[in-house]
Amino acid sequence: MRTDGRQPDQLRPFTLERNYAKFAEGSCLIKLGDTHMLVTATVEDRVPPFMKNKGSGWVTAEYSMLPRSGRQRNQRDQMKPNGRSMEIQRLIGRAMRTVFDLESMGERTITLDCDAIRADGGTRCAAITAAYVAAYDAVQWMLKERMIKKSVLLEPIAAISVGVVKGQEVLDLNYDEDSTANTDMNIVMTGSGKFVEIQGTAEQDPFGIDTLGRMLKLGQKGINELIVAQKQTLGIL
Amino acid sequence: MRTDGRQPDQLRPFTLERNYAKFAEGSCLIKLGDTHMLVTATVEDRVPPFMKNKGSGWVTAEYSMLPRSGRQRNQRDQMKPNGRSMEIQRLIGRAMRTVFDLESMGERTITLDCDAIRADGGTRCAAITAAYVAAYDAVQWMLKERMIKKSVLLEPIAAISVGVVKGQEVLDLNYDEDSTANTDMNIVMTGSGKFVEIQGTAEQDPFGIDTLGRMLKLGQKGINELIVAQKQTLGIL
Amino acid sequence: MRTDGRQPDQLRPFTLERNYAKFAEGSCLIKLGDTHMLVTATVEDRVPPFMKNKGSGWVTAEYSMLPRSGRQRNQRDQMKPNGRSMEIQRLIGRAMRTVFDLESMGERTITLDCDAIRADGGTRCAAITAAYVAAYDAVQWMLKERMIKKSVLLEPIAAISVGVVKGQEVLDLNYDEDSTANTDMNIVMTGSGKFVEIQGTAEQDPFGIDTLGRMLKLGQKGINELIVAQKQTLGIL
Amino acid sequence: MRTDGRQPDQLRPFTLERNYAKFAEGSCLIKLGDTHMLVTATVEDRVPPFMKNKGSGWVTAEYSMLPRSGRQRNQRDQMKPNGRSMEIQRLIGRAMRTVFDLESMGERTITLDCDAIRADGGTRCAAITAAYVAAYDAVQWMLKERMIKKSVLLEPIAAISVGVVKGQEVLDLNYDEDSTANTDMNIVMTGSGKFVEIQGTAEQDPFGIDTLGRMLKLGQKGINELIVAQKQTLGIL
Amino acid sequence: MRTDGRQPDQLRPFTLERNYAKFAEGSCLIKLGDTHMLVTATVEDRVPPFMKNKGSGWVTAEYSMLPRSGRQRNQRDQMKPNGRSMEIQRLIGRAMRTVFDLESMGERTITLDCDAIRADGGTRCAAITAAYVAAYDAVQWMLKERMIKKSVLLEPIAAISVGVVKGQEVLDLNYDEDSTANTDMNIVMTGSGKFVEIQGTAEQDPFGIDTLGRMLKLGQKGINELIVAQKQTLGIL
Amino acid sequence: MRTDGRQPDQLRPFTLERNYAKFAEGSCLIKLGDTHMLVTATVEDRVPPFMKNKGSGWVTAEYSMLPRSGRQRNQRDQMKPNGRSMEIQRLIGRAMRTVFDLESMGERTITLDCDAIRADGGTRCAAITAAYVAAYDAVQWMLKERMIKKSVLLEPIAAISVGVVKGQEVLDLNYDEDSTANTDMNIVMTGSGKFVEIQGTAEQDPFGIDTLGRMLKLGQKGINELIVAQKQTLGIL
Repeated sequence: MRTDGRQPDQLRPFTLERNYAKFAEGSCLIKLGDTHMLVTATVEDRVPPFMKNKGSGWVTAEYSMLPRSGRQRNQRDQMKPNGRSMEIQRLIGRAMRTVFDLESMGERTITLDCDAIRADGGTRCAAITAAYVAAYDAVQWMLKERMIKKSVLLEPIAAISVGVVKGQEVLDLNYDEDSTANTDMNIVMTGSGKFVEIQGTAEQDPFGIDTLGRMLKLGQKGINELIVAQKQTLGIL
Repeated sequence: MRTDGRQPDQLRPFTLERNYAKFAEGSCLIKLGDTHMLVTATVEDRVPPFMKNKGSGWVTAEYSMLPRSGRQRNQRDQMKPNGRSMEIQRLIGRAMRTVFDLESMGERTITLDCDAIRADGGTRCAAITAAYVAAYDAVQWMLKERMIKKSVLLEPIAAISVGVVKGQEVLDLNYDEDSTANTDMNIVMTGSGKFVEIQGTAEQDPFGIDTLGRMLKLGQKGINELIVAQKQTLGIL
Repeated sequence: MRTDGRQPDQLRPFTLERNYAKFAEGSCLIKLGDTHMLVTATVEDRVPPFMKNKGSGWVTAEYSMLPRSGRQRNQRDQMKPNGRSMEIQRLIGRAMRTVFDLESMGERTITLDCDAIRADGGTRCAAITAAYVAAYDAVQWMLKERMIKKSVLLEPIAAISVGVVKGQEVLDLNYDEDSTANTDMNIVMTGSGKFVEIQGTAEQDPFGIDTLGRMLKLGQKGINELIVAQKQTLGIL
Repeated sequence: MRTDGRQPDQLRPFTLERNYAKFAEGSCLIKLGDTHMLVTATVEDRVPPFMKNKGSGWVTAEYSMLPRSGRQRNQRDQMKPNGRSMEIQRLIGRAMRTVFDLESMGERTITLDCDAIRADGGTRCAAITAAYVAAYDAVQWMLKERMIKKSVLLEPIAAISVGVVKGQEVLDLNYDEDSTANTDMNIVMTGSGKFVEIQGTAEQDPFGIDTLGRMLKLGQKGINELIVAQKQTLGIL
Repeated sequence: MRTDGRQPDQLRPFTLERNYAKFAEGSCLIKLGDTHMLVTATVEDRVPPFMKNKGSGWVTAEYSMLPRSGRQRNQRDQMKPNGRSMEIQRLIGRAMRTVFDLESMGERTITLDCDAIRADGGTRCAAITAAYVAAYDAVQWMLKERMIKKSVLLEPIAAISVGVVKGQEVLDLNYDEDSTANTDMNIVMTGSGKFVEIQGTAEQDPFGIDTLGRMLKLGQKGINELIVAQKQTLGIL
Repeated sequence: MRTDGRQPDQLRPFTLERNYAKFAEGSCLIKLGDTHMLVTATVEDRVPPFMKNKGSGWVTAEYSMLPRSGRQRNQRDQMKPNGRSMEIQRLIGRAMRTVFDLESMGERTITLDCDAIRADGGTRCAAITAAYVAAYDAVQWMLKERMIKKSVLLEPIAAISVGVVKGQEVLDLNYDEDSTANTDMNIVMTGSGKFVEIQGTAEQDPFGIDTLGRMLKLGQKGINELIVAQKQTLGIL
């Protein structure tokens, strides 16, 4: 039995609130248990220097936690690099780009700002799940503004964590589970059921191929549920 | 007539949501029109180096805006100082310390994190108004934890902006008004009706002493309304 | 009686030395008691990025203290932002821009470097008072170089501090007075007697409206004397 | 056929040169095709702040590339965070810690400096493989210096990249292959055949579960060969 | 003939003004032609970390130029290292330490702040010459405060530049000469006529041993005159 | 007798390995006793901002030490300026430029990256000696690529350290000698026997003119030997 009473293959209760941010081109507040992530999508008519004059667009992400989003206060990212945040935002950006047709975007950038309002484990996966909803609306806005002729978003994408806690493979670890997990894996998948990213880490004991198989199966199940919810939220089911 | 239909001496509609942040010792989400500030209060058993071994406590503030809280996306504060943010957080910290009995706090720090979720003018004033509610609950928590014997918060404090827009003195400027104001003034006052801080700036034309008098009067009116609401929220009216 | 024997409404003895810096387009060394500020004005044929292609000019200020200008040695501003310095230089730049006709300057920048050689309280106000003299000569140089057709400096500007020390409102606080003041206020006014900036801060006890009125009156008196001296120095009285 | 004539399941020719750095407690220069990594192990009598007074040790890694190790010159890591380098060194440190008995090390740190002298793809995996050799000798040195009573290194660890290039799963991608791969995966395994880290990324098309299975099999084969070579180099086969 | 009419072996007119900075333990303003350097000496009861618990003292220097000390405005040293300034302050500190008996100072630091008020070539040499006067008074202050029992300053030290301008060896180059010099050499010598530092650089054409000999002779002559002036200023001739 | 058995006027055994870096336009690994420096030369079609639109080229150097190149581990140059490294790379760049015909290079930059793989004293001098070999090959590459019509490298250049150790003038100090030297001097000379740079520093006792003469003679002897070796390595003797 898990500390919050869930079954091993059960997600935390979750909601997706579309258009939470009034001024952004797209936005979504995801609440996944006590993990609350706000993702905003900003469309800008420029691309980073390394993409200039190629005719293509770019999708990037930034990730941060409000200082007191968690149990302890974190220092703001100020004047020194925070390796964890950079690693997470690189993951989010890379994953989101796989479901975009960058070449049909024109020289534009969509920036996905992912900010943890409340953090209880699984923030990077929640961010990707919400980012799809925010990105969807930003793309709709681009269509309406006639920046593009057809949607540049190829298919849904969502992510969830799995892991081994007290010898048992479980889905969607909360902070307490994450702190004591032997193994922790983040899985990003598309609506068509393929893998975009797999990041599995043995925190203590290395793991065997059977454990890996069971974790992948849990991840697939959770991601399927999240993608259904994304489509319901967007009215495209 | 103001662009949003308000009278010159009228605040935007506002709410104060106590304990918005689950994990913090105190917190408040203020919505003042389309300005939404989340303030969390964190209590820590340490003081900054310059306060060590004096037996006193410290109250400090940090201020930031989520990148897409406003109409344009702002770069995150990263790797370079942002003069405006620092100036604002210095103001908030200084103001809050005037209503604290620092000497009775022990060597503890209360950090007030003020983050703009949505920004439509007047964020620094909204932050101070919400900070009082967050600080109140942090002090109650300290009492419950027996860190202090009596409250170290002396009286309420709140803040509001006033200014001269199209030749008319007005209360609580929104972003559009702020952008076109001739003069902009932030006023911080206590529950006992005294000034803690006055910062008036002629953006274009210098202003005379009569204008100053009318602006101060508007500010007093607005702050009185905010302090009543703070007390209602805290159940101490 | 004040520690240096002055009346409550009396400025410290002061001098303005025009053209102290041989190589600058304009400069002024102000000695106000033991506060000595060197202000140089540099004219450059460029504007900051946010002003480009608008046809207007820009006026900005930088402020710093020599490490041993005061009683204690300060670290040089190196590799980390100094909130106080940034706040001060933002104030000086903002104030000076109100007396400039930026639109008639062409795409040029006047940078006012304000460096404290000796610091005994009131450095930011002394800097503004000297900056007017330095700016005047820089504008004269621009006229001579045929960069502009008429002066772009609209009127004189000067600043002084006032405060409440031992229950008494006083003019032009020195360092010792500033350290013990209940309230500290910086006032910036124009030659035509209007306010450009008012920054009043209760360091300990909040202050009432009567105190505010008395402080404003003292400030007006001091600034009038400074503006007469500026004009004498420039031979334009 | 691969561009350098290798079979899909074939490693590049490689050598491990033990004790390449004269002054370090352990070191290894690995040459894996045209990827040459120098790893040095430094033992110091201190732990980072977050590990103090726990009686345990710490193992950490730093990763960098000489500016002209590759086809283009890279700027040195100076004054700004480089997300890629930080992500890599976090991976190396995390992986190495899983084969260490940190609790028996005393409050000491082993720092593994991984510097690319020549870079042709797969530098992070080559670094882990060489790091085991360098760490082994550093631990032997600690034994000799009587800092520890028995080895604190639990078992061998090595890493290799696999990927999908032109529709074919291949082992140990060089730079050209890496640039055109659809999918890229880094695998870290122990001598006992278990996974320490799996990081698979779809660069373009998401990948299915069968592809994942074939990539894992290739990785296992390559790592087995590397671990035999590590043992031969250390004379512990 | 030199551009300012001097003989090849002639110093620019110079003055040393002792105690220019009111608050420092020692200070000197040197004017050497249009090069004006203010040097202050600060005594503090601490040593840098690498000197702790050795019982010795430390002497260090910092060097900076006011932004508009020269013909062009320089950016302030902010947020990025300035190689030239660091190189100069390392030279000044190293040179000054050779005339100090650090071991008899106790764990104290004398910081010599060298700031160019006006810069017309030769600032680093002028700084060393003035630093001796400032340091002398700081040591006298330490004697008076009974921090030390006898002077810790062993002998005078001064510095001057020499160079080859238009094929002619000359003493004490001003900015115009320095800009066109083939060779530029800074010489630091003690009162007893020995070399502390020689830094000669061929800006364009390498130079031969005869030229070197003539430059050293000019340097000796100039330094002798400066040391006489130092002693007169201090009343110890 | 020196600690490693050398005569006072004897260099450490040395080798120059041309083209050590596979991907660079030129490179050289110098081993001078236990000082091993890798220098790579990179040719790029751009010049720094201050050289733009002058039609000339630029030669610059960067210097760094691998963290465990020496007896102690050094922190990587990260996020804070390292005065020593900057001073050294400024010296190397300045020296190398004196043997280049920058005006005939076109708007191109040659960057000389000098990295210490092993450090036992004299790294900056070894870097200059190897830089000539790397630069020679980069210039040959430019000729082959028809970027230039004739060589832009005017003559050989090399450098060596001399000093006074235990009262004896010696050539080419190793780390132990350098640590105990009274005086330390770096000499840079051209193939035609002229001085490019002389940097002599009294670490403890100031030195007289006779000592200076003997050190210069030792330096000349060592540099002659190094230049013969450079020419042999390049096949141009």
